[in-house]
Amino acid sequence: MNDKVTIRPFDHGGAAREGQLDFSANISPLGVPGPVKTVLRDLAAGDDLARYPDPDCAALRAAIAGREGVLSEQVLCGNGAADLIYRFVTALRPKRALVLQPTFSEYEKALDLAGCDVDRVVLTPDDDFVWPDDLPDRLGPELDLFVFCSPNNPTGVSAPVDLLERVLDRCAEQRIHVLWDASFLDFSTTPDAYRAVMRRARDKKQDLYVLNSFTKLYALAGLRLGYLLAPDAGMPARMQAAGAPWTVSTAAQAAGAAALGCDDYVAELRRYIANEKEDLRETLESLGVRVVPSDANFFLLRTKREDLADVLEEEYDIVVRRAGNFPGLDDHWVRVAVRTRDDDQTLIRALKEVLAHG
Amino acid sequence: MNDKVTIRPFDHGGAAREGQLDFSANISPLGVPGPVKTVLRDLAAGDDLARYPDPDCAALRAAIAGREGVLSEQVLCGNGAADLIYRFVTALRPKRALVLQPTFSEYEKALDLAGCDVDRVVLTPDDDFVWPDDLPDRLGPELDLFVFCSPNNPTGVSAPVDLLERVLDRCAEQRIHVLWDASFLDFSTTPDAYRAVMRRARDKKQDLYVLNSFTKLYALAGLRLGYLLAPDAGMPARMQAAGAPWTVSTAAQAAGAAALGCDDYVAELRRYIANEKEDLRETLESLGVRVVPSDANFFLLRTKREDLADVLEEEYDIVVRRAGNFPGLDDHWVRVAVRTRDDDQTLIRALKEVLAHG
Repeated sequence: MNDKVTIRPFDHGGAAREGQLDFSANISPLGVPGPVKTVLRDLAAGDDLARYPDPDCAALRAAIAGREGVLSEQVLCGNGAADLIYRFVTALRPKRALVLQPTFSEYEKALDLAGCDVDRVVLTPDDDFVWPDDLPDRLGPELDLFVFCSPNNPTGVSAPVDLLERVLDRCAEQRIHVLWDASFLDFSTTPDAYRAVMRRARDKKQDLYVLNSFTKLYALAGLRLGYLLAPDAGMPARMQAAGAPWTVSTAAQAAGAAALGCDDYVAELRRYIANEKEDLRETLESLGVRVVPSDANFFLLRTKREDLADVLEEEYDIVVRRAGNFPGLDDHWVRVAVRTRDDDQTLIRALKEVLAHG
Repeated sequence: MNDKVTIRPFDHGGAAREGQLDFSANISPLGVPGPVKTVLRDLAAGDDLARYPDPDCAALRAAIAGREGVLSEQVLCGNGAADLIYRFVTALRPKRALVLQPTFSEYEKALDLAGCDVDRVVLTPDDDFVWPDDLPDRLGPELDLFVFCSPNNPTGVSAPVDLLERVLDRCAEQRIHVLWDASFLDFSTTPDAYRAVMRRARDKKQDLYVLNSFTKLYALAGLRLGYLLAPDAGMPARMQAAGAPWTVSTAAQAAGAAALGCDDYVAELRRYIANEKEDLRETLESLGVRVVPSDANFFLLRTKREDLADVLEEEYDIVVRRAGNFPGLDDHWVRVAVRTRDDDQTLIRALKEVLAHG
């Protein structure tokens, strides 16, 4: 009865051990925002954790809806964005989907689990992993679902706005549902341009579902919180039914609501990352490292050493994300997050040594 | 594509509003244990929440395994016991299951979602909802799975030990997997007798899976944490693969590990509940309420008033669990948790008034 569940090794970043410098997880280097810490401290001191969480996440959904300019019923909160990927697939039950590779592995894992056939378009380093201009032609009536991540993990590349709009129109025309993982959108240099694309899709009543994460922007990876924006109330209700109730803990709901008030934190973070990213890119390129142009808070890199990740971990206690298990990449590729100035300098010093040899 | 996901109204307890006295959720009335609060406060103050949780829950699983006398690989932690029900069904993919009703609704909901046919044995008030002696005969080769809850929610009734062993042997003989939801076992008057049953099943290499919850015993409903004990490493690995990674938050893992050290809390809680339960039962019966004999921290009650839950909520701000939506029950039935002495007296006073009229 259980022969269909494929067991794969854990293949994500963020698994660094105590004492290691972790460049493998793409999380805000500024840490948990102060107001969120305060809310969590009060929660720990009180007795609210003894009660079941609100299964509807009513307060948090209302806050998100207000910020996103949609109705509460168009929002569904989940136990991290990854949880929502599985619920979405379970609720939609697509038969055939198109996924752009290399990308976050959980889309295909969730689709496999649901028995969905997956077609791939593999983007190549030769084109800096940019969407091909003929992508709309690849979206035919045999597809139920198109899944993409923009800015994309692990490449950091965002979809070109014009092409993205043509793709969304094409999907609408062909009645293809679209799942856009926008978990890294707040790190983009032009998030507003993409929010405008989302708004236009909503205005046109297109079947676009947008995934968002609190994990990366607010450094809340340990609490698990993400949300989905839907064109109407239908999919959130079906997804809520497609799994256990009480998915989102009281702590995550409270932290999320507090985080939404942290505009100053986000502004500072965006400035910090933009500045640090530019310096990091220039230095990496001066070391002969190939740096894929990134619209996110991390870089996909190619170096001459296939053993770079091993050497960094063993000799420097620095963990980067090995990218060789992404379709289309090999062991020359690694992904590194942009961290604090000090941490990034530590990485640079190590890279200088490692790349000078070998 | 999505016509198979049935949307049902939320049908659990624990949804009381601020200011209401909540008898609808079966949670320890002693609140979050002190050592757990301390751990959570330290976590809120530090930066660990910015990191991804350990997807393997290694430390917590080792602690649970040590306590339960099994190997770590036989333990899987989940985002509440409910999350594990869905993962179990997704990983097992049973075709036909038997469920004893009335019981927790999520078993059938998860089985429905997975396209599994469900047979029911409906236990009746006439027999105080006790397992029928011919239950083994109902377990035939057409079944892949037998699901039960003991002590059972909402009846509070535990399976008779002898009959339970006969049922487990029968299931082994017929190659039927067994899922035992033991979320309320620590409230039983004889938990050791049931732990001995589990041990014997393990010794016989029977295909028994046991669900446990931290929610009720340690008043951690707001954090979401449960675990499954399996006869070997196979099912935990398949269940881990059958959904998103990082299911269990860092906060839940830390709270769970701290809770396992709270033996004094559990001992005090068991004494408190035993004492309070006896008094509550006697008083309820003196009011003409039918009280189903319970081996848990709650009572299933039948009164002459079909509108009891409405009246208690509207006139007294007391929330009890309406039990009319459980198969085999009607609106005369409600479930009430055992709470603190003060709270229980408040309930009694309200019941005296309500049942004197109408």
